[in-house]
Amino acid sequence: MLRLLDQRLLPGRLVWRDCPDAAAAAAAIRSMVVRGAPAIGITAAFGLAAEFARAPASGDAAVTCFEAAAGRLHDTRPTAANVRYAVERMRARLDGLLDLGASPAEVASGLEAEAEAIFAEDLAANHRIGAFGAGLLPRTAGRKARILTHCNAGALATAGYGTALGVVRAVAESGREVEVFAPETRPYLQGARLTAWELLEDRIPVTLITDGMVGSLFAVRGLDLVVVGADRIAANGDAANKIGTYQSALIAKAWDVPFLVAAPFSTVDLRAPSGAAIPIEERAPEEITEFAGAPVAPDGVGVWNPAFDVTPARLITAIVTDRGVARPPYEQTLRSLSPA
Amino acid sequence: MLRLLDQRLLPGRLVWRDCPDAAAAAAAIRSMVVRGAPAIGITAAFGLAAEFARAPASGDAAVTCFEAAAGRLHDTRPTAANVRYAVERMRARLDGLLDLGASPAEVASGLEAEAEAIFAEDLAANHRIGAFGAGLLPRTAGRKARILTHCNAGALATAGYGTALGVVRAVAESGREVEVFAPETRPYLQGARLTAWELLEDRIPVTLITDGMVGSLFAVRGLDLVVVGADRIAANGDAANKIGTYQSALIAKAWDVPFLVAAPFSTVDLRAPSGAAIPIEERAPEEITEFAGAPVAPDGVGVWNPAFDVTPARLITAIVTDRGVARPPYEQTLRSLSPA
Repeated sequence: MLRLLDQRLLPGRLVWRDCPDAAAAAAAIRSMVVRGAPAIGITAAFGLAAEFARAPASGDAAVTCFEAAAGRLHDTRPTAANVRYAVERMRARLDGLLDLGASPAEVASGLEAEAEAIFAEDLAANHRIGAFGAGLLPRTAGRKARILTHCNAGALATAGYGTALGVVRAVAESGREVEVFAPETRPYLQGARLTAWELLEDRIPVTLITDGMVGSLFAVRGLDLVVVGADRIAANGDAANKIGTYQSALIAKAWDVPFLVAAPFSTVDLRAPSGAAIPIEERAPEEITEFAGAPVAPDGVGVWNPAFDVTPARLITAIVTDRGVARPPYEQTLRSLSPA
Repeated sequence: MLRLLDQRLLPGRLVWRDCPDAAAAAAAIRSMVVRGAPAIGITAAFGLAAEFARAPASGDAAVTCFEAAAGRLHDTRPTAANVRYAVERMRARLDGLLDLGASPAEVASGLEAEAEAIFAEDLAANHRIGAFGAGLLPRTAGRKARILTHCNAGALATAGYGTALGVVRAVAESGREVEVFAPETRPYLQGARLTAWELLEDRIPVTLITDGMVGSLFAVRGLDLVVVGADRIAANGDAANKIGTYQSALIAKAWDVPFLVAAPFSTVDLRAPSGAAIPIEERAPEEITEFAGAPVAPDGVGVWNPAFDVTPARLITAIVTDRGVARPPYEQTLRSLSPA
């Protein structure tokens, strides 16, 4: 059965939560027990498999069961491409099993195997992303390389190793000295709570800043590379990622520092022609107006709380996927990397 | 006696603190009971006056007393120009009183009057800044004007009315409809706690965002003007202000939206040739790693916590002072506005 580390309690407490069925998986995604586009895709896949492990079915019953569970999972968080990717992979596997006349037990174990494959492929993809991305870090003439990230695109956001932090890990594993700067990433503090924790666990030097310090960091300390993850990448290279990413790309451009988006190809949505087609989730105002349940803003204040923003392709130096590195013009290069 | 509204407890509680002497004033500034460059300058002036009200002195004793108190106040927060401005004004008044052979009681009441004058002049200056700045808001063709600020440059940061928020108030008083966007301003949340509160009290519509949403706000909602305060303005127009200001200026430039710095001329430091000469205060890591005493980041993480950044003059459309509006080249225009 799928067990998830409750990311809401990190870094203070390590608590694991059981996910026995699709409803539990959907609830875990919605309540942010698990977050990060690849990780919620994987959670959706295991949620679907768990539904069949609990109540094996075949034929029409299996299809009905699948679609009900898929609907629940689809409605959790709209921006990440990976939930749809996982659901479509699982549906294709189910169709294949049903075409072969599989028994209910065979359907259940086939779907379990597919979820395991999605997990394993994501882990392998991140190692490839890391290797590709590490090759793009500019030379730093003997001194420590300084890398800025945003939010958490690490092991916690994926099957393991991470996308943006996979690049960082690959740089560190190559023997280059590296220092990571992690914006805390309000309102949810994924940078402070998750990225800082992951990198400290790996003994990679990490310095925490607030989201307002990014510009000053470029001006005062200097950076060699920015690398972030993505929740959905459109066919033209526009990339949705955690709110704050777009402005860090603008700042990197002003300082002429390479800005990389690192994501498995399953994050690329070739059906979205540009960022304008990517739905941006808006979350509850209390995420900003309260802290641990206590108010930090006056009653009645208006709040705008988009969870993601879109970085236009022209600000992205390269998109680092497990299938290779795409460079502008992304309309062509992303399509050429596509398995289809 | 000077009484200060404890800004650390806003907006939840309104608690006033007595400041009976210079040590209490210095402690209030250091602990952020009071913040905002003009407000801490005024607090320093009243702190110096209070020192003499408690223990009237004349001649050498007065000078010794003054310098000890001034030293205490000087060491509080290094970035704001206004503490030095206030201390120099008070010292000039003391010198004048001593030259006239003033009695201890006359010294005390003279210094009290000077502090009151600094207070009253700041309030008047803010109304002039507001009027000058309101004239710089672009036309918005009948729709509500959208103004972004940063941190709190309002009544709470000054003698009253505010600098950046003085501009907002003057716009609202002129009958134009306005909506203000307030970044929460981590780590101290002056935007959420103070700016949102001030504007709600004045029934000016205000929408709270996190510091990472500024870029997306330009892209998704659109803005007509950015107006911020300043802690020190160099002779070339480089302006130190709350951390996060610089990147909002970079973003405004990318979107071709006017970026105004609003400050009394007492914030201009013509002895600082450029922003490189402005000392930037770095504050305790716990401001970022803890929230209300509870950890939000792992033990042992590195932290960089500069309280201010420098916005280069080339990103500033105009500097709005009580003595008029300076436009580039600021080397010439700021000097021409100088009273000296």
